[in-house]
Amino acid sequence: MISWPELKTLRASWKKRVIVVIDACLEELYGKSLAHELQAELIAIPAKKNQETADLLLRALFEKKCGRDTVLIAVGGGTTTDLVGFVASIYLRGIDLVLVPTTLLGVVDAAIGGKNGIDTPFGKNLLGTFYPPLAVCIHLPFLNTLSEQERFNGQAEILKLGLVYDASLWNDPSCIERAVRGKQEIVERDPKEKGLRRILNFGHTIAHGLERVSEYEMAHGLAVAIGCVAEAHLSSQLGYLSDFAPIEKVYRKFSLRLPKQYSRSGLIEAMAHDKKKEQGKLRFVLIDQIGRAAAFDGAYCRAVTQEELEPTLDWMEAFFGQN
Amino acid sequence: MISWPELKTLRASWKKRVIVVIDACLEELYGKSLAHELQAELIAIPAKKNQETADLLLRALFEKKCGRDTVLIAVGGGTTTDLVGFVASIYLRGIDLVLVPTTLLGVVDAAIGGKNGIDTPFGKNLLGTFYPPLAVCIHLPFLNTLSEQERFNGQAEILKLGLVYDASLWNDPSCIERAVRGKQEIVERDPKEKGLRRILNFGHTIAHGLERVSEYEMAHGLAVAIGCVAEAHLSSQLGYLSDFAPIEKVYRKFSLRLPKQYSRSGLIEAMAHDKKKEQGKLRFVLIDQIGRAAAFDGAYCRAVTQEELEPTLDWMEAFFGQN
Repeated sequence: MISWPELKTLRASWKKRVIVVIDACLEELYGKSLAHELQAELIAIPAKKNQETADLLLRALFEKKCGRDTVLIAVGGGTTTDLVGFVASIYLRGIDLVLVPTTLLGVVDAAIGGKNGIDTPFGKNLLGTFYPPLAVCIHLPFLNTLSEQERFNGQAEILKLGLVYDASLWNDPSCIERAVRGKQEIVERDPKEKGLRRILNFGHTIAHGLERVSEYEMAHGLAVAIGCVAEAHLSSQLGYLSDFAPIEKVYRKFSLRLPKQYSRSGLIEAMAHDKKKEQGKLRFVLIDQIGRAAAFDGAYCRAVTQEELEPTLDWMEAFFGQN
Repeated sequence: MISWPELKTLRASWKKRVIVVIDACLEELYGKSLAHELQAELIAIPAKKNQETADLLLRALFEKKCGRDTVLIAVGGGTTTDLVGFVASIYLRGIDLVLVPTTLLGVVDAAIGGKNGIDTPFGKNLLGTFYPPLAVCIHLPFLNTLSEQERFNGQAEILKLGLVYDASLWNDPSCIERAVRGKQEIVERDPKEKGLRRILNFGHTIAHGLERVSEYEMAHGLAVAIGCVAEAHLSSQLGYLSDFAPIEKVYRKFSLRLPKQYSRSGLIEAMAHDKKKEQGKLRFVLIDQIGRAAAFDGAYCRAVTQEELEPTLDWMEAFFGQN
């Protein structure tokens, strides 16, 4: 984690070709000045993390004849840092990468932990690698221009981290540094998601399903918020969590609705693509108290049958209603 | 490195979904029996390592709803093991992989060392990752059906290893086990190609250029053989290698010709895509005796100007002539 001045110092030490890859929406606002301050070339890409955008960036790098002595600096939200991270990891079998997240979600989640990914017609983040960047530069002034929805996308992930790992974040989700440190601790202990890191997936089995059902119209933060409270309900329903009421109370404050395309069978079908699945069975991360995921002998997730899931889906449909 | 019976034992220990991905040319000969012996599903793919084949394999995996608990067993030449390795490394951020090379080139080179890659319209192997397989299974009976050209593709790499690393291989290139061990030693000492591993690139700066000039009609082994003797000439020309004559003599035995599309300017343009390039300058691996690459303080390559290269290209054009 480095600051903006530290990134400039780092850049001055490189005898390399440096390319800022920026979300096209930010190009006008920041593009030229960033490229100037970092003595870099500039490539703007659409904020869509799919094969098409990856091909576009790869082609630009090939056409510029970028060699292995190239550093990509990704500037944008999680969509941009995820896509540029993936491209950096496969271009000439990997070139140097620095991430500069410009959204709260990017700062507390997407840019931390070395995961990248792009979406495919079959689902979100289905192609990707583990590819740690040289550095992540956090520059909070970027966050000043965020919309309320963008801010909520990040807050939903901070609340999630509060539920599975650090109760103090649950009580005060405004502490960005603590959220970053929390996620870093987890990924350092389990970089390849063999166990502990799975807790970061809390709420996401249902969230990814909802996003898929909504044909990706639904904002990630809204889906994660619904997913977290629903999976907390599931934790309680299955007897791991004794007190669900305070969690329900917090999420009631947000005016969350299921997407208009929602149907129970659609969600169940959509969740079948979950990456935690094993031997055809869905697995969920569960919590046994606020601030702690249930360990399940180090697996940090548990197979859940459709029968076990039904009461939670009943509750979820009643609690949120549909758009 | 494991044997065929060991692979079957290993397979029996997995509680995973196993998919044999086989070169379509081998499907009739081996497909059904391998899938049966390994209790696996079968996917056949064309022997073309490009984005199109990668997409085809990815789509097949998505359509089969393969989860992270899937093992891909790649059966084929370097083209197939490279492509399947790349796909395994990006599918759901990486699934288990076993390589079963069926060509001499695959056995002594492509399958060893964790590199994979696919070609792009901009050049060979330009997209890829470092992704070590769980195991490489070497089953020499597969090599019995190889054509003379296929065999030569492997022999050219063994001779190269003889020139840069192990003079005994230069004297007796028939020892497959020794060639495999030699490459393994090198990649274990430098898995990410930061220094020593570059010696495996000897001959390949020119070889990749020739292949590109020929629009990839030229067999890899022929290009590597020409590249090796030419880069040995360059080593001698630049004063590192004192005795070039015995090397020239060996390669004279093979009836090698430059591709019909060859032109000097075309080769120079094609070499500009070389991945070893730094700050716009071509770099070559050079040898200072048979069996030893020049160390250049651990860089194992040296920038070479076009002027320095010209006498070698003069020699090469005279020595080989054109198809």
